[in-house]
Amino acid sequence: MKASRFFIGTLKEAPADAEIVSHKLMVRAGMIRRVAGGIYNYLPVGLRSIRKVEQIVREEMNRAGAIELLMPAVQPAELWQESGRWVKYGPELLRFKDRKQADFVMGPTHEEVVTDIARNQIKSYRQLPVNFYQVQTKFRDEIRPRFGVMRGREFIMKDAYSFDKDVDGLKESYRKMYDAYTRIFTRLGLEFRAVAADNGSIGGSGSHEFHVIADTGEDAIAYCPTSEFAANVEAADALPLVAERAAPTEPMQKVATPGAAKCEAVADMLGIPLERTIKSIVLATDNNADNEGAEPTIWLLLLRGDHDLNEIKVSKQPGLADARFATEAEIVEWFGTPPGYLGPIGTKKPVNVIADSTAANMSDFVVGANDAGYHITGVNWGRDLPEPIVADVRNVKKGDPSPDGKGVLDICRGIEVGHVFQLGTRYSDAMNATFLDETGKPQPMVMGCYGIGITRILGAAIEQNFDDKGIIWPEAIAPFEVVLCPMGYDRSELVREHADRLYGELVAAGIDVILDDRGERPGVMFADWELIGVPHRLVIGERGLKDGKIEYQGRRDAEATLLPAGDAAASVAQKVRAALAR
Amino acid sequence: MKASRFFIGTLKEAPADAEIVSHKLMVRAGMIRRVAGGIYNYLPVGLRSIRKVEQIVREEMNRAGAIELLMPAVQPAELWQESGRWVKYGPELLRFKDRKQADFVMGPTHEEVVTDIARNQIKSYRQLPVNFYQVQTKFRDEIRPRFGVMRGREFIMKDAYSFDKDVDGLKESYRKMYDAYTRIFTRLGLEFRAVAADNGSIGGSGSHEFHVIADTGEDAIAYCPTSEFAANVEAADALPLVAERAAPTEPMQKVATPGAAKCEAVADMLGIPLERTIKSIVLATDNNADNEGAEPTIWLLLLRGDHDLNEIKVSKQPGLADARFATEAEIVEWFGTPPGYLGPIGTKKPVNVIADSTAANMSDFVVGANDAGYHITGVNWGRDLPEPIVADVRNVKKGDPSPDGKGVLDICRGIEVGHVFQLGTRYSDAMNATFLDETGKPQPMVMGCYGIGITRILGAAIEQNFDDKGIIWPEAIAPFEVVLCPMGYDRSELVREHADRLYGELVAAGIDVILDDRGERPGVMFADWELIGVPHRLVIGERGLKDGKIEYQGRRDAEATLLPAGDAAASVAQKVRAALAR
Repeated sequence: MKASRFFIGTLKEAPADAEIVSHKLMVRAGMIRRVAGGIYNYLPVGLRSIRKVEQIVREEMNRAGAIELLMPAVQPAELWQESGRWVKYGPELLRFKDRKQADFVMGPTHEEVVTDIARNQIKSYRQLPVNFYQVQTKFRDEIRPRFGVMRGREFIMKDAYSFDKDVDGLKESYRKMYDAYTRIFTRLGLEFRAVAADNGSIGGSGSHEFHVIADTGEDAIAYCPTSEFAANVEAADALPLVAERAAPTEPMQKVATPGAAKCEAVADMLGIPLERTIKSIVLATDNNADNEGAEPTIWLLLLRGDHDLNEIKVSKQPGLADARFATEAEIVEWFGTPPGYLGPIGTKKPVNVIADSTAANMSDFVVGANDAGYHITGVNWGRDLPEPIVADVRNVKKGDPSPDGKGVLDICRGIEVGHVFQLGTRYSDAMNATFLDETGKPQPMVMGCYGIGITRILGAAIEQNFDDKGIIWPEAIAPFEVVLCPMGYDRSELVREHADRLYGELVAAGIDVILDDRGERPGVMFADWELIGVPHRLVIGERGLKDGKIEYQGRRDAEATLLPAGDAAASVAQKVRAALAR
Repeated sequence: MKASRFFIGTLKEAPADAEIVSHKLMVRAGMIRRVAGGIYNYLPVGLRSIRKVEQIVREEMNRAGAIELLMPAVQPAELWQESGRWVKYGPELLRFKDRKQADFVMGPTHEEVVTDIARNQIKSYRQLPVNFYQVQTKFRDEIRPRFGVMRGREFIMKDAYSFDKDVDGLKESYRKMYDAYTRIFTRLGLEFRAVAADNGSIGGSGSHEFHVIADTGEDAIAYCPTSEFAANVEAADALPLVAERAAPTEPMQKVATPGAAKCEAVADMLGIPLERTIKSIVLATDNNADNEGAEPTIWLLLLRGDHDLNEIKVSKQPGLADARFATEAEIVEWFGTPPGYLGPIGTKKPVNVIADSTAANMSDFVVGANDAGYHITGVNWGRDLPEPIVADVRNVKKGDPSPDGKGVLDICRGIEVGHVFQLGTRYSDAMNATFLDETGKPQPMVMGCYGIGITRILGAAIEQNFDDKGIIWPEAIAPFEVVLCPMGYDRSELVREHADRLYGELVAAGIDVILDDRGERPGVMFADWELIGVPHRLVIGERGLKDGKIEYQGRRDAEATLLPAGDAAASVAQKVRAALAR
């Protein structure tokens, strides 16, 4: 490609509505332009990267035996009524009427349509398994579209749907997709993790999210660097950090801790580690909804001072599905004191005490005294207060043992770009998608679904790879792999000759190269291509050529290096190939 | 591709709603499935052909210097309000509200969005010309979607938009697109014609439609086989078929022609050629709309007996823009007789007489006598009645001289699959899309737009290429170029060996081949692939192999031929390449 035949729309300034770096850089690099909230034009530079992502996704989906088709963006309401999602799906499902007042939706996803295809096309177990996929424009009417392509309303997805005759088949289809996703994100050149997400519907690891690792990611991920374990922090099991409860060594003692309402302050004041303190969190559950005057049940959750409550885990505890934080009035009524110095000993009215599995194994610990300005030290389970209910109700943290027993957890942040999910028969039951099994009996097809956010990947890749000059693309999805910057293309015959020669050699080598023949000043050229993030740059100048040299600089390199002019194309082609083979 | 890893969804019966052959065959061949009226799933077989069309279109658009981008399907109403089309566009424009009650449309076309891009991105004449294109899903809420992909609601289009600094630039951009379209339809392997369509807005041939020629086409096209001339029958100029009026040779005479109200019957009865008769058509225009009692003006249009009225041409005549057919009451009042024996001589009240340019040069002709059961023969202009107003008001017909003077017209039927259009400044004026010219003065960009109906091409290709067994694809857009049908793939090692070898050889030769390893009976295999329309078939059977032969049959061939087993792959690859190079 020659730049004079291409469209480059770089900007000096990012738009005011761009909050995150990928959004800013995609606009500044001329990849996207806003049309309406969460709706973008993909300008030529952006589309090139999208197509490269799509191509890799297609190759790996095909390799995994999935078959491409294309379903419509506009879907009739009837199918959504059949599945039940016409009612269940919130306002993110864009509903509208056509000119004949028939109800339609703009598809945010295609389970209904593909299940309709399967029930019409698949009659026999002999036709199973099958996995249909598409690369398609979807629409989700986000209440607050933001972050550019990261949370847009109109976006491009690859979605696949597998149909199997039984759960074993589903598990095999699922594994194939899991492996394909692993290959896809590896080939894209992104640092990523597959994160277990228990979907609860089938059991086991029925669902994995694929996250691109980036400091700016929305999700906190707990992972074990020495094993495959990875899970959302909210979903990761927290093992007890104290294996066995030690025998008491201290007497229980009420101590003045004026102004030290937080565990950190208490530990400071008493000169003890934070790990010796226990924090108190008060929840309430309402009883007998019909009787307004009925008293709630009050729950006291005890966690080690350095731990955080995990509300999702709490909600899975018996009796706590609908728990809420207690009001200050309730706390005063049950504990006799406002929040700050609460504890399990000497409450005014009875409370249910739940200790996190780590807190439950502590001894000689410190808790609030239910008396403002006082704590109790040397507290021990059994001796000073009854044994609590024990449960995992905290978030894991860095340094915790990995639940798989194979190391120690670290925490990173991630951006979800893919999701594989064992659906089971949720849609085939609702929509009567059956096949005849080996005995001639109709059985519901067992489904899986597998999504990749094509456009979102661009944003995630940038969040992972940028500096203050702009984007740093992995070679596989860079809009161009190599840029040639001739210094004086229009003035110097020598420069033009070498630039054209290098261009020809790189094209012949199958390299995706752009020759910047726009006649811009070097400063403008360099700034544009660093902003756009082309990973390899060759600068062709008269001065260097007099010594037979061409200047090479990788996008991550601090300094340029000189290459012999004759070898420059082969050398940079080799670098690109090596990167793509990673 | 191996059929066992693919999805083939052929059907014995076409759906009841399929009216035309391409719709029937696309459903039966498993290319499309209806989701709602005018909304289809593209099943794997169909998608393969779509992708091939897209690929050829992209290659030729890129070659012509157009730059690909991607605009959204969902567009904000504001842009359509700016252009004025929010009001002007009928109910085919699907309008809806998002969750915040903001107005949006599903884009049936993208002039507004692309003009918005241009006015934001293009500041200077130095950035012009530029031509942006996309391949994108569009929606048009047809009142009566039908004919499968030929008139769907959701469909795939390639649309391109050129921006130039002046009309000369536009004409060059237009010519490039015209040439690209010519290459595209040639490469697609379709018989087509570029048809002039005067859009009236810029003058000259500001618009061409590209039609695939097919007997079932909606449009009648007049074309000259010995020149480039082609136009919709409605738009083609009709030259006078009689170059100069001959001198009268017959006296005028009233003759009885009982029951012969039509020219054909009169010619029969009188034993003269139809070309000697003149037909009368009576139109009326209403005067003084405010005064209900005002008399209309009555017009008598005279055409040679074998010619048909062209209402579009009539409407362009002075005073006839709002003409309507006269009522029977008006005819009786003005002519003194009901329709059937009308003519220009002896009307009861004065009428304006317009003769078509051919009729105006006739002599010794026959007209109605304004007396039921009677005609007048030997009529001559000037001698027997005043000279008429002369105008081109008829449709051309086969055998007419071509308006370009380079031959004789023929008539065929076509399906419009592409359209190139000189828009001018209609959108850039309305949306203030200006650039600074060489003198620093803002000027409106001069636009062209260029569409190709990607999905429609499939239907048109089938309407042009089918037989009673199914589709006959041109190689360029066939879902597969070659099918291998092994007789007993699962039973005969010899057959399997040769089938696998041929498959490997064809894949290595870059041929898009499918190996039917499904284990179906020969009859089913043959019927499926003939229906699907794969242009080349090799049958691998034990009997032939014993003689070292493989059976080859082209989809249009009446009979199979035998190829030496060792050369079969090379031979069929050669056939495919030859077809693609056409």
